[in-house]
Amino acid sequence: MINQKMLGLGTKRSAIRELFEYGKQRKAEIGADKVFDFSIGNPSVPAPEALTEALKDLIANTDPVALHGYTSAQGDAAVRAAVAEAEEARSGCDVDPNLIYMTCGAAASLTVSLHAIVNPGDEVIVLAPYFPEYRVFAEKAGAILREVPCISGSFRIDFAALSAAITPRTKAMIINSPNNPTGAVIPAADLEKLGKLLSEKEGDSDSEIFLICDEPYRALTYDGVEVPYVPAFYHRTLVCYSYSKALSLPGERIGYILVPPAMPGAKEVYAAVCGAGRALGFVCAPSLMQYAVAKCGNMTADLSVYETNRKLLSESLSEMGYSITNPDGAFYLFVKALEEDAAAFCEKAKQFELLLVPSDSFGVKGYVRISYCVSTQQIQAALPAFKALYESYEKKD
Amino acid sequence: MINQKMLGLGTKRSAIRELFEYGKQRKAEIGADKVFDFSIGNPSVPAPEALTEALKDLIANTDPVALHGYTSAQGDAAVRAAVAEAEEARSGCDVDPNLIYMTCGAAASLTVSLHAIVNPGDEVIVLAPYFPEYRVFAEKAGAILREVPCISGSFRIDFAALSAAITPRTKAMIINSPNNPTGAVIPAADLEKLGKLLSEKEGDSDSEIFLICDEPYRALTYDGVEVPYVPAFYHRTLVCYSYSKALSLPGERIGYILVPPAMPGAKEVYAAVCGAGRALGFVCAPSLMQYAVAKCGNMTADLSVYETNRKLLSESLSEMGYSITNPDGAFYLFVKALEEDAAAFCEKAKQFELLLVPSDSFGVKGYVRISYCVSTQQIQAALPAFKALYESYEKKD
Repeated sequence: MINQKMLGLGTKRSAIRELFEYGKQRKAEIGADKVFDFSIGNPSVPAPEALTEALKDLIANTDPVALHGYTSAQGDAAVRAAVAEAEEARSGCDVDPNLIYMTCGAAASLTVSLHAIVNPGDEVIVLAPYFPEYRVFAEKAGAILREVPCISGSFRIDFAALSAAITPRTKAMIINSPNNPTGAVIPAADLEKLGKLLSEKEGDSDSEIFLICDEPYRALTYDGVEVPYVPAFYHRTLVCYSYSKALSLPGERIGYILVPPAMPGAKEVYAAVCGAGRALGFVCAPSLMQYAVAKCGNMTADLSVYETNRKLLSESLSEMGYSITNPDGAFYLFVKALEEDAAAFCEKAKQFELLLVPSDSFGVKGYVRISYCVSTQQIQAALPAFKALYESYEKKD
Repeated sequence: MINQKMLGLGTKRSAIRELFEYGKQRKAEIGADKVFDFSIGNPSVPAPEALTEALKDLIANTDPVALHGYTSAQGDAAVRAAVAEAEEARSGCDVDPNLIYMTCGAAASLTVSLHAIVNPGDEVIVLAPYFPEYRVFAEKAGAILREVPCISGSFRIDFAALSAAITPRTKAMIINSPNNPTGAVIPAADLEKLGKLLSEKEGDSDSEIFLICDEPYRALTYDGVEVPYVPAFYHRTLVCYSYSKALSLPGERIGYILVPPAMPGAKEVYAAVCGAGRALGFVCAPSLMQYAVAKCGNMTADLSVYETNRKLLSESLSEMGYSITNPDGAFYLFVKALEEDAAAFCEKAKQFELLLVPSDSFGVKGYVRISYCVSTQQIQAALPAFKALYESYEKKD
């Protein structure tokens, strides 16, 4: 018998991936411009020109033996210095290059962090709605996942529910800000309360609770909202970053884990991160991309199209009568389904060639996620379909 | 408490890495040209010009959104088709692109394969001497590692010892051809015997035994030796490949797993591979490198320097009186230590500024590994030191 859990994970596609495959087939049937695919969070704007130039320059002017050779397992020293500098610039806090661990993207940042700290049977808390792979990653690391629902509608942390969910077995909590699927950014005031709560709970049960911040959408915020530097609010914070969304490089798998110098036992936690990366088979993050992102610091792709799309979509859908949550960041709009069963609503939407992801896969009921990392034309073309979908429910009443 | 096993793996460097770090320090002290560092298996020849051109062409002429976007989790379809074509060309056997899984290099090929098939408590056999990370990877997947020594001196499979080591709990066996550290290639006759033995053992205990072939050195062979296509000899074979050594790209992390179409339950095994890649956080292999290696098929870097080094080093050391095993492939020379304790011998070698890896870390006693992926000048410059080292033992007698 091969490993049945892995077989299950490889056989059963995620709901998002399932819908994406349906979309590909449907487009082949009726034409790509007739299908309004809002299923996938794949950046639709190109990487910044500076990144392309950095790649060209590195390839033209670096000895290939050095350029494509192993870096040290934790990442090239100069790259880690550049990352630390960029993190210090945004946070105003001390960051140690020797506590930066370069990874193969956000998923690797999370799996390496989880395997470093989790012991079998430990509990890991996620705030629902949450990115569904958190369950896969946490369970593979031997943890038991505990879902804590956010406050309905605002999607802010429900501190009473969270407090009740923390046990002496709680080893970590994952937060995701801006959030996929809601776009919500956790405000500083909530982070302050969170830091306090976690510190109290640690004291109560003489335990260690790690706060894992998954921040791939950190650079994608609107209306001047900024994502606070979470280690400033809680001592045992691991920052998991990826350049996928900010630099439009999701296929290149490049990111990092930041262990704050002020964390108790920071060096040991960092060593465990290195050990987990080694045991999972990561060796080092892709070398060319390490050197390239180091040259692009806190740069981003031209994200203005997401801003345009967000405005167009949220204003238009609100006008039609949909109930939406205005996102602070990321490129997702979380919208109330027009019937209780979100999956049934999404099936209905398919009749109008609209591909929306039901919220059930994110651990909450009654909503849909609309990924607006698409062309503005696609949104414009889809608006009549959204209107017709809305009206089809009015007729029912 | 964080995970103590991961902490241990991150804290205790491998013997190879330890020696490499010593070398860096020593070079700073007395000058790089005075230290003869033979510790690390880092390719010393540049990637082929065709690879550099492929990268330049891809970056200049591909839409960045496509070039750096997610590929499907198992790898881009056209890339997998190119890999299958190259594998068919070398093997003359059917290869299915839909059973190729692109990975982040050899280590990932191994961890993903192991996690796909191993259940906790299963046994995994390795033939000593073996690459030390096999233990780390197998144990992380929940397996118990069983070492089976090869025949002393020839380093061919000891079939009696192997047969005795296989139990109903044996889930997999890892072979590595050409071998790190001996350079030995497993000949077709031995693979035929191996296939027969494993099939018999499967029948005896109604079990499934997977043969995992770690083949990163496959393209590096000498004197016309060819590495046989292992699935032709045994039905339940997984081929783990990496472009690191053949194309001199070790930092880029790109390789693949091949599931042969003739394997019983091939599709399920492949699905489990996909599931394991997902759960470990790999998402997809780096996209730019996927497209680049697909254009370089069975190409290699200019490996003639390794051929030159191998001849120079093995002839010179033999002449001096060292007992060597002539390697069929890879870029390692396995040499008998001049005293029983290989670690003590390597300490002695350090007095002559020779950095050699003791064989203990590879699971056998009394040998040293010399990595000759260095400049030919370094070998020439080191010969007097090897001679002096040898003579220091003659004087003792």
